[in-house]
Amino acid sequence: MPVNLLPPEPSAIRAVSGIELGFAMAGIKRAGRRDVMLVSIVKGASVAAVFTQNSFAAAPVQVCREHLRLTPGIRALVINAGNANCGTGPSGLRAARLSCEKVAELLGLASNQVLPFSTGVILEPLPVDRLIAALPECQATLSADHWCDAASAIMTTDTVAKAHSTGFMHEGVDYVVTGIAKGVGMLQPNMATMLAFIGTDAAVAPDLLQDLTKRVADVSFNRVTVDGDTSTNDSFVVIATGAKPGKLITSEHEPAYLLLEAALVAVAQRLAQAIARDGEGATKFITVTVSRAASEREALRVAKCIAHSPLVKTAFFASDPNLGRLLMAIGNAGIDALDVSQVGVTLGDVKVIEAGERAFAYREEDGARVMKEAEITVAVDLGRGASEATVWTCDFSYDYVKINAEYRT
Amino acid sequence: MPVNLLPPEPSAIRAVSGIELGFAMAGIKRAGRRDVMLVSIVKGASVAAVFTQNSFAAAPVQVCREHLRLTPGIRALVINAGNANCGTGPSGLRAARLSCEKVAELLGLASNQVLPFSTGVILEPLPVDRLIAALPECQATLSADHWCDAASAIMTTDTVAKAHSTGFMHEGVDYVVTGIAKGVGMLQPNMATMLAFIGTDAAVAPDLLQDLTKRVADVSFNRVTVDGDTSTNDSFVVIATGAKPGKLITSEHEPAYLLLEAALVAVAQRLAQAIARDGEGATKFITVTVSRAASEREALRVAKCIAHSPLVKTAFFASDPNLGRLLMAIGNAGIDALDVSQVGVTLGDVKVIEAGERAFAYREEDGARVMKEAEITVAVDLGRGASEATVWTCDFSYDYVKINAEYRT
Repeated sequence: MPVNLLPPEPSAIRAVSGIELGFAMAGIKRAGRRDVMLVSIVKGASVAAVFTQNSFAAAPVQVCREHLRLTPGIRALVINAGNANCGTGPSGLRAARLSCEKVAELLGLASNQVLPFSTGVILEPLPVDRLIAALPECQATLSADHWCDAASAIMTTDTVAKAHSTGFMHEGVDYVVTGIAKGVGMLQPNMATMLAFIGTDAAVAPDLLQDLTKRVADVSFNRVTVDGDTSTNDSFVVIATGAKPGKLITSEHEPAYLLLEAALVAVAQRLAQAIARDGEGATKFITVTVSRAASEREALRVAKCIAHSPLVKTAFFASDPNLGRLLMAIGNAGIDALDVSQVGVTLGDVKVIEAGERAFAYREEDGARVMKEAEITVAVDLGRGASEATVWTCDFSYDYVKINAEYRT
Repeated sequence: MPVNLLPPEPSAIRAVSGIELGFAMAGIKRAGRRDVMLVSIVKGASVAAVFTQNSFAAAPVQVCREHLRLTPGIRALVINAGNANCGTGPSGLRAARLSCEKVAELLGLASNQVLPFSTGVILEPLPVDRLIAALPECQATLSADHWCDAASAIMTTDTVAKAHSTGFMHEGVDYVVTGIAKGVGMLQPNMATMLAFIGTDAAVAPDLLQDLTKRVADVSFNRVTVDGDTSTNDSFVVIATGAKPGKLITSEHEPAYLLLEAALVAVAQRLAQAIARDGEGATKFITVTVSRAASEREALRVAKCIAHSPLVKTAFFASDPNLGRLLMAIGNAGIDALDVSQVGVTLGDVKVIEAGERAFAYREEDGARVMKEAEITVAVDLGRGASEATVWTCDFSYDYVKINAEYRT
């Protein structure tokens, strides 16, 4: 059961001028569901992306990197669910390139103006013929209003479609920022994994958009963890169509840049949190904040150590205020010369650890009260600096084991 | 259920001249079980130890480090189960020191000739009065033949006592090496955690014994993982009594050193493997070997990435030959410039991945056959060097969640 996560309200998800989405049922893994999506992007748009750090980057990720390096203007994305096209060697690369060529033929583009994305089972050949056969239907259904349907089409074991819209006003223009994402584990039951696409009708210089995309990913998708495993297909794309009137954003010091950044971060964080809320087997949504660290990197290390610990996560599932495990996880982050007598921890609104020991006023029933809630914040104060970081995760339940131990179907 | 792990056969566990063990029921956590152990060591023995790297090192670990730094000759160990004396601040340190003083009084030693060890619940004050009250009984029961009982006395949620003996002959002398260990998760249900003690009647120079202890730990206890969490109390002690006639070992180039090292590694690896076999909720014992790595460190990193992955571990629980998860875990190790087209993986006797792709001759039923076994080897060939490393772990089952989600009792 997702934690406080509802499907997007279609009326709340705004179209982005210059982006159209279409889909079809290609039967990539099984028949009767939309599993191929085509995104058509207006000429002149900037497109930026960040990808998985996994060494076994899937074939489409490799092709994306090539096309982003070589191309003046990306004009289309082609996405399939049901097969990750990963661990598929040279024939996997050929399949990914072929899908780009066929999209290019349909839309009158060069094939390196198309970016391919895949999510699904690893180590199986992609049935690229089925994908290609579905492209005309994708083209026929292209519409600017299809963001919500698109969010459903890229789901694998997600239980709820993930989409979010916001906007910002600048010099009288009302800009839109809309995004969709899929993913419920860093790696699902044999599925691979997170894809996120955000579009805006603002105009941004390509290099600046790439920096901005990295920056947005670092405070959103790179701050969410379900099981600590990083998939082979993770991709996050930002498209800035420039379809609204307004000046091209060329510097990070412009007010419009800051407004756009805030809007992108808002959408990306909402989508990233949705991934943890819909995490495999999740019963609780947990926010881990580490403050007064010597560096942001150190804060992030401690936060991730807590968010990754199976012992901490099973304690959350059990609603057990097991403070020893929090202490253990903090100590396990490998922070150099950490003075534990300066460390404090607050669970929800309850001070639980002070000066590295159980807080004097702490009562077990207060901790137990907080642990029963569906949304819990763990705030760690390292008492040694001015940096902080936040990570979102979920608990670790019987259902996590069940979902991941069930035979691939 | 432990995987192929039986309690030690008392007749197979040999006494070590110069070491006596005694115990008592102190009621540290609950009444009616042996929970305090005293180890008396002959004068002139060398004692070496390695400890947890967790920043929240427990009070007894801190006192051990002090006493090992200052003291010419450690003569006694005092160990309690039921309370970790961790996250207990200055009063915890006082309690640990007081237990050493009382042992010293009883045995006619200086208090810094005593090393304290604790395992059990974190963040609770150690009831040191009860521990002290039990010491006379510990002294009264001191005997060289008590290794098996000692292995039971230090258990927390272990289901099987862990002890092992071996020996080696050198220049006509029959030397004994006997060890005991406890621990079934890196951190148990609120228990903390691994303790291991090995004794030998060989004579070793103290500094050399410290190097040797580190070296033995690196290929045994540091190669086992249940859940990737490192406890606050992990301690591994080697005692070389020198009680057998024979020359003092002073150099790592002596044949006696190599024989002793081999025997210590054999005992320590057996105990480390017993920890994984008795891992919380374990149904399978898994050996991960990584070969042809550019360095041992790199090999270890890949092996641990596989052994820590919840997705790999749940697939083992399900007997599911989910090769994509192995691929993901290898790629997730952050190996610089890994050429995935050189990577091969063998599961048991079945070649499953070749040149970074599913092996041509692989059939699902062969993988499924291997995954059904209680003991499984994953052999990864990185194809880029001459180094290798091995790690032992267990699978991740419903019972792991159950054991760790149950409220502290």
